[in-house]
Amino acid sequence: MSWLPLWLRTYQPTWLAGDLTAGLIVTVMLIPQSLAYAMLAGLPPEVGLYASILPIVAYALLGSSMTLAVGPVAVASLMTASALQPLAAAGSSDYVALAVQLSLISGVMLLVFGALRLGFLAYFLSHPVISGFITGSAVLIAVGQLKYILGVKVAGSDVLETLAGLVKALPQTQPATLVIGVSSLLFLLLARRYLAQCLIRVGCSAKAADLMTKLAPMVAVIASTALVAGFKLNETAGVSVVGHVPQGLPQLALSLPNMTTLGQLWLPALLITLIGFVESVSVAQSLALKRQQRIEPNRELLGLGAANVASALSGGYPVTGGFSRSVVNFAAGANTPLAGVISAALMALVIAALTGLFHYLPHAVLAATIIVAVTSLIDLKTLKEAWHYDRSDALSLLATALGVVTLGVEAGILTGVVLSLGVLVWRSSHPHMAVVGRVPGSEHFRNIKRHAVETVPGLLALRVDESLFFANATILEDYIEKLLTDDPSLRYVLLICSAVNQVDTTALGVLTQLERSLSARGMTFALAEVKGPVMDRLRTTELGQRLTGKVFLSVHEAFEHATRSGEPPVPDKEGLVLVGINGSK
Amino acid sequence: MSWLPLWLRTYQPTWLAGDLTAGLIVTVMLIPQSLAYAMLAGLPPEVGLYASILPIVAYALLGSSMTLAVGPVAVASLMTASALQPLAAAGSSDYVALAVQLSLISGVMLLVFGALRLGFLAYFLSHPVISGFITGSAVLIAVGQLKYILGVKVAGSDVLETLAGLVKALPQTQPATLVIGVSSLLFLLLARRYLAQCLIRVGCSAKAADLMTKLAPMVAVIASTALVAGFKLNETAGVSVVGHVPQGLPQLALSLPNMTTLGQLWLPALLITLIGFVESVSVAQSLALKRQQRIEPNRELLGLGAANVASALSGGYPVTGGFSRSVVNFAAGANTPLAGVISAALMALVIAALTGLFHYLPHAVLAATIIVAVTSLIDLKTLKEAWHYDRSDALSLLATALGVVTLGVEAGILTGVVLSLGVLVWRSSHPHMAVVGRVPGSEHFRNIKRHAVETVPGLLALRVDESLFFANATILEDYIEKLLTDDPSLRYVLLICSAVNQVDTTALGVLTQLERSLSARGMTFALAEVKGPVMDRLRTTELGQRLTGKVFLSVHEAFEHATRSGEPPVPDKEGLVLVGINGSK
Repeated sequence: MSWLPLWLRTYQPTWLAGDLTAGLIVTVMLIPQSLAYAMLAGLPPEVGLYASILPIVAYALLGSSMTLAVGPVAVASLMTASALQPLAAAGSSDYVALAVQLSLISGVMLLVFGALRLGFLAYFLSHPVISGFITGSAVLIAVGQLKYILGVKVAGSDVLETLAGLVKALPQTQPATLVIGVSSLLFLLLARRYLAQCLIRVGCSAKAADLMTKLAPMVAVIASTALVAGFKLNETAGVSVVGHVPQGLPQLALSLPNMTTLGQLWLPALLITLIGFVESVSVAQSLALKRQQRIEPNRELLGLGAANVASALSGGYPVTGGFSRSVVNFAAGANTPLAGVISAALMALVIAALTGLFHYLPHAVLAATIIVAVTSLIDLKTLKEAWHYDRSDALSLLATALGVVTLGVEAGILTGVVLSLGVLVWRSSHPHMAVVGRVPGSEHFRNIKRHAVETVPGLLALRVDESLFFANATILEDYIEKLLTDDPSLRYVLLICSAVNQVDTTALGVLTQLERSLSARGMTFALAEVKGPVMDRLRTTELGQRLTGKVFLSVHEAFEHATRSGEPPVPDKEGLVLVGINGSK
Repeated sequence: MSWLPLWLRTYQPTWLAGDLTAGLIVTVMLIPQSLAYAMLAGLPPEVGLYASILPIVAYALLGSSMTLAVGPVAVASLMTASALQPLAAAGSSDYVALAVQLSLISGVMLLVFGALRLGFLAYFLSHPVISGFITGSAVLIAVGQLKYILGVKVAGSDVLETLAGLVKALPQTQPATLVIGVSSLLFLLLARRYLAQCLIRVGCSAKAADLMTKLAPMVAVIASTALVAGFKLNETAGVSVVGHVPQGLPQLALSLPNMTTLGQLWLPALLITLIGFVESVSVAQSLALKRQQRIEPNRELLGLGAANVASALSGGYPVTGGFSRSVVNFAAGANTPLAGVISAALMALVIAALTGLFHYLPHAVLAATIIVAVTSLIDLKTLKEAWHYDRSDALSLLATALGVVTLGVEAGILTGVVLSLGVLVWRSSHPHMAVVGRVPGSEHFRNIKRHAVETVPGLLALRVDESLFFANATILEDYIEKLLTDDPSLRYVLLICSAVNQVDTTALGVLTQLERSLSARGMTFALAEVKGPVMDRLRTTELGQRLTGKVFLSVHEAFEHATRSGEPPVPDKEGLVLVGINGSK
């Protein structure tokens, strides 16, 4: 039985109560959410339900989080719609088939990344970029749902076009739909803000009140369905409803994508994979920390990969760990993934017997559910913090959000990735460099611009506070050449590498060239405080050979060497030895 | 007259002889090269000639190199062809118009980058990636020229397709063309390898012999033209020749691209701009160093930008500083850009009066010139060095070269840029981390795995040898949490930041979260040896506030603090104080 997950092999009866409660509560959240997110993804409602059964079980067997709730989520649904809309008509059987294959490709990618232990890939997206992406997506999603609240038909490929279409379509607004949509929105917003307080006042415990708040969408669904069904508002007032949802468990089937489909879907699948993984791991991580549990990114890849393959096998679409349901699952006392398995069983029951109940469910209520859910994803706090701490991070956040809203999710996230990396290179490409001298009577060396220090005539001692690589090596070289041009008396260049953690091939080439050029001019090039791993690699290179005897453990030793090979220091008027290296005293 | 460049205002009569000789020799190289590279770019021969007049003068006025030879070059010609072939038929007037606008867009980009002082942009490409790109391009160019040597028509969008086409077309090979092509190839290759030695033997100076070798292409051009003209081989044996080249100086004209064209050309123009700039600056830099001169990247941007705008104004196509002609210019004794101006004047003379001479010039000879020129661009030395020094750099070189050959120049260079950045992030995402202890009787702290050091019970002192940012912050956090799980007696986490040059927003968030989580568990989180600039930014953040009194100047102070707040060190059997932090003794 060792193939069973640890939590199942060591299951304690005392955990059952929490898992049962959490499973039940999450199911009540999951029913409207899975229908709503399928609508957001442009898919028939049953696809959302299918994606809420087997994937949960697959994750329960392989994932590492005890409390993550896997299933359809808002951002992955938006990305699915964005990937598939150019390829097929939303809701068509081709469209559904592509969604299934998107899930399969993403699942296989996750499994491969997991097998190759590439969990660290998730960290290639900086926090500001993810925050900008999620915020931009939330705006895009919310604006896209407004048409359901108004009951009009609007097509638009970006936010501005959609907004213009909505304004133009305002006269066609269906009054009954608008009333249902706006009242649901108000109910959900007020419930989120005030329901818990009210419940506490009437004697609920804080925890129970908080959990009941999460059930508000279900209340809206039941009330509005009853209303529409009672008055046949779909026929009499044109209220758009979910309609017929096929009853019965999903059929298991595997359809492999052909090369054309693979060519069209690999990039969107990769982006869904990365974003879904990052979102999911960060939720799982933050919940695990609260209970001193650990998340293993590589096992998460396997868990989410299995969930997506299972989704594809059972006619579902891309799934990942969602924020809101996971938090509720945690708060409702889930101890193990058994809570998820219970949810899955309940969802299977719903789809096997109860889909008729959704016939009169108005789209406007689902749209209201989505809008309220995604507004909580809009993250201005990170923007504010980044703005104060690091302007370039704040700008990449804004650019990503703006990119998503104006160019769409794919271009937006690619903008973000490029910006993440660009900002990183930009930062490291302007290293802090300081010409240093000796603090009199010590073996300490400090910036000659900030401290009264001794220098050795003819010696340029330069400390560079960054690893050396392609984006900054030439800047260092240029700076040294500039210092040498400014002060022709310099004969000895000492590079202090205490902050150099790496030297890449480009930088090695630049340093080799610099050493050759200095030697040719009769000057000495030396290094000090080179770190062990850097020195290990340098040793076998041409530069390493040429520098034999000129790599010093400490700046002190290097100064001693430079002094022996030059004239003695000259005291200046203040009694300190301050010889103008690069003219700055 | 202060608008004149410095070299002109301070011109010394003694410089003239060198400039004249160099100008003449470069012209003799430039004539066949400009015709050949125009052919490579899919342009009529006169466009190559136009690109060899005004651009040189423009660079002479604004550039910073004394010896760089600007004009048509192989790689930019290939990139031009690759950018324009999807948009218009090679050689058509639309195609020429697009080439002119490509030059204009690239020129404006260079000028804007120069005005914004973005010269450092060139450093965003690592040396291995540039080497891989140039090598891949050289292979692509050489294979593409084989059809001219065989005298057959072959279309192919990548190397394999072209090679397959060549094999299929072998039976159509034109014997006369093949003889001319192969004998030119052999002549040029043999001349390059042996001519200088022969000339030295018959009494030439080494320098003169070396320069005369560079004139071999002109000899091949003259001999083959005479042969074809004498026997009218173009008519009798189907040898493809240059044909009519319009006589007369280029007309000055400015045609601005419309939005559609701009949309099609901006990315190729940007890539040509970046690659051309990098190539040019590295040539200029290496020549300048030999004479103790300096190159200013930002002035190079202006000089090359002006050259490209001038090229566009006079009906030319993208130009940059080329390797082979610059080296010859330097070796022939060019002292100032006057050498280039002399070249430009001679080229103007050629185009004004002598284009009739090119009528019988066979394409096969131009192809042979190109093939021989680009084989010297194939750079296996960098690959070999990178392979020994840094496997990941070697792999990105290979991937870029392979990308260029199989996917084309644009996809190839984009692959390269992404790999450059990816390798950088990958490296920094796996920082070296060491748990440290005190060297007995000192204030030095070393890795507990490598040295016999004292530790303080309950204290985890971790040094991280990398700046903290989005790609490694979570890895650090995971590592700390793992160490804490492994040794539950730990109560005090000290992070030593001596090698941390930067902390980005993502890492700040992770550290803040870590501090909160440790505090919540009753543990202490402290920092030591935080660099000034990093501390300046931390101070105003939530983390900075929470860490008040727990940021130590030295690890020694931090150890003192941790000792005061814990039990005294326990001596182990060897007499050293070695308390199992994370179980590793």
